[in-house]
Parts: sequence; C-alpha cells; structure tokens
Amino acid sequence: MNRRQALKASIVAATGASIASVALADDEDQSEASLQTVMSLMGAMGSGDMAAMADLMADDMVWHNEGDPNIPWIGPWEGKEAIFGFLGVFSENFQTTKWENTDVLASGDTVAIFGEMNGITTKSGKEIGDFTFALRAKVRDGQVVLWNWFEDSYAVSQAYNG
Amino acid sequence: MNRRQALKASIVAATGASIASVALADDEDQSEASLQTVMSLMGAMGSGDMAAMADLMADDMVWHNEGDPNIPWIGPWEGKEAIFGFLGVFSENFQTTKWENTDVLASGDTVAIFGEMNGITTKSGKEIGDFTFALRAKVRDGQVVLWNWFEDSYAVSQAYNG
Repeated sequence: MNRRQALKASIVAATGASIASVALADDEDQSEASLQTVMSLMGAMGSGDMAAMADLMADDMVWHNEGDPNIPWIGPWEGKEAIFGFLGVFSENFQTTKWENTDVLASGDTVAIFGEMNGITTKSGKEIGDFTFALRAKVRDGQVVLWNWFEDSYAVSQAYNG
Repeated sequence: MNRRQALKASIVAATGASIASVALADDEDQSEASLQTVMSLMGAMGSGDMAAMADLMADDMVWHNEGDPNIPWIGPWEGKEAIFGFLGVFSENFQTTKWENTDVLASGDTVAIFGEMNGITTKSGKEIGDFTFALRAKVRDGQVVLWNWFEDSYAVSQAYNG
C-alpha cells in the first residue's frame, strides 16, 4: 500500500464516511487545466460574454444551487439551455455588489472556490449583507459539467422576500 | 514568469477578482497532513471523542457558519471554548440522518470537502431533506484553525422553525 492509499484508508477509517474521491492533485496538469476552465467561465459570466460562456459550458452541464424555492433562480438546472434561461432571470433579479475569491483549490477534474459576496435583490431592493460562498465545479474535456453553488440561502431568501 | 505564476496572472486577469490564495498543491506533504488533521477532527466529532477533538482544535479556532440567527447553533464562534459550547447546543438540536463526503481536496494549509447530508431538527421533529454541504477548513501546526461550514441554511431554518 503506497502512501496515498494508506492515507485514503485511514481517512475512511477515521470518518466512517464513504469517500467517492480523495483528490490530492494526482495530475497537476489536469488540475491546472480544470482551474483555468472554471476561472474562465467565472470571468465570462462576470463580463457577460455569452459566446465565451457557451464555449465553456458542456451541453449536459448541471447547475446545482439550493435555497428558497420561491426564488426564481433556485434550481437545480440541467442542460446548457436551461442554465442560460436561469442566468437571464438571475441577472434581472440580482445585482452583485461584492465578489472576492479567497481560496482556490483544484485537483484533477474538480475545482473548489471559496469567497465573500454581497448583492442586492432587485425585486425588494434589499441588500443581502456580506455572506460567504463556496463553489464545487467539475470539468470534462475543457468544459464545465457541474457548477454546485453554496451561499447563505436563508439570508438571500430574507432579502428577496423583503 | 514560471507556469504557476503565469496561471495565477491569467486567473486574476480573467476574473478581475482578488485572489488571496491560488493553491495547487505546492507542498503535497503539507496538503496530506492538513487533510489528515481535518478528517481526524471530522471523525472525532462523529464519534463524540471530546479528548481527540480538543487535541485537534487550535485554541483560537474559528467556526464560521451562516444562517437563521434564531437558530441557537448559528455562529460565528470564536475560540475552542465557544465552539465546544455551540457543539453541545447543536448536538441537542440536530440528529444527523445522512452524511456522505463526495469530494475531498487539499492544498497547503487548506482543505475543501463537499458532500450530502440530511438531519432532523429535534425542536420541531422535522427532517430537513437532503442538502449539499461544503467545508473550507484551515490547519496550522496539526490543529484546525478555521471550520467554515456551508449548508442550505434556508432549508435548515424551515425545518427548525417547523
């Protein structure tokens, strides 16, 4: 048993949890390529570059965000077309006032980004207040296939519902 | 400019975001040690091993979780003593019915874990329903200094308030 296998075995023993992926940068080139793809998509979203977004999103991409089902941009959204539809609704309803990435990790096909955000929910005009976000993204063949987004869904709901 | 610096520069250019840390396993030994520490703490929490928990938590550890401020375990909590206090309240109020780690990444002093959970909020007796979680943890000298936890805080609030 090599060191990586030993580590994985000890983790499973320690937690009793099932671990689908213990990703410790087995392939640094793949990790860097995945990170580049995810960051490029984040940048294209930020600048509203729809053509670049379309290139970077897999046709079967899934956007998984959880929260108040009364909010029109809460998914999950399956498929590039559905995601473009949701992003249109989102951009009409949400004005980002702060976005700062604080931690960025990548390993193999998986990227993790953490940071701080704030925004105004335009329906109510209320600001959410600073909250932390997390992103788990997965990449296949240079395109993003999963965008699993975490935020303080309670605070977002409070602001949206005024 | 080496490849890592070039990647970092291109990321900053692509996103326009400030990036405090672009962590791509510069030090695999440190990454593995950080992961081991975080997984050991998760395991100790799961089994209720208070002595092991105390060994693995820095005195100045911060537990950052966001959500409904009416829920007695929503922090943030600063310092090991405060965290032990909050965990007592949490364990009286929350019965975990599902916990599965699906993605685990580590780079340097930072660990990212994603997975699926469910639980019963005992005050109302209501189950939250499956939700995804994210964890950003940071390690210093073999002890956890940050435990930044993400969950569907809207769904947790709905279940807690019955």
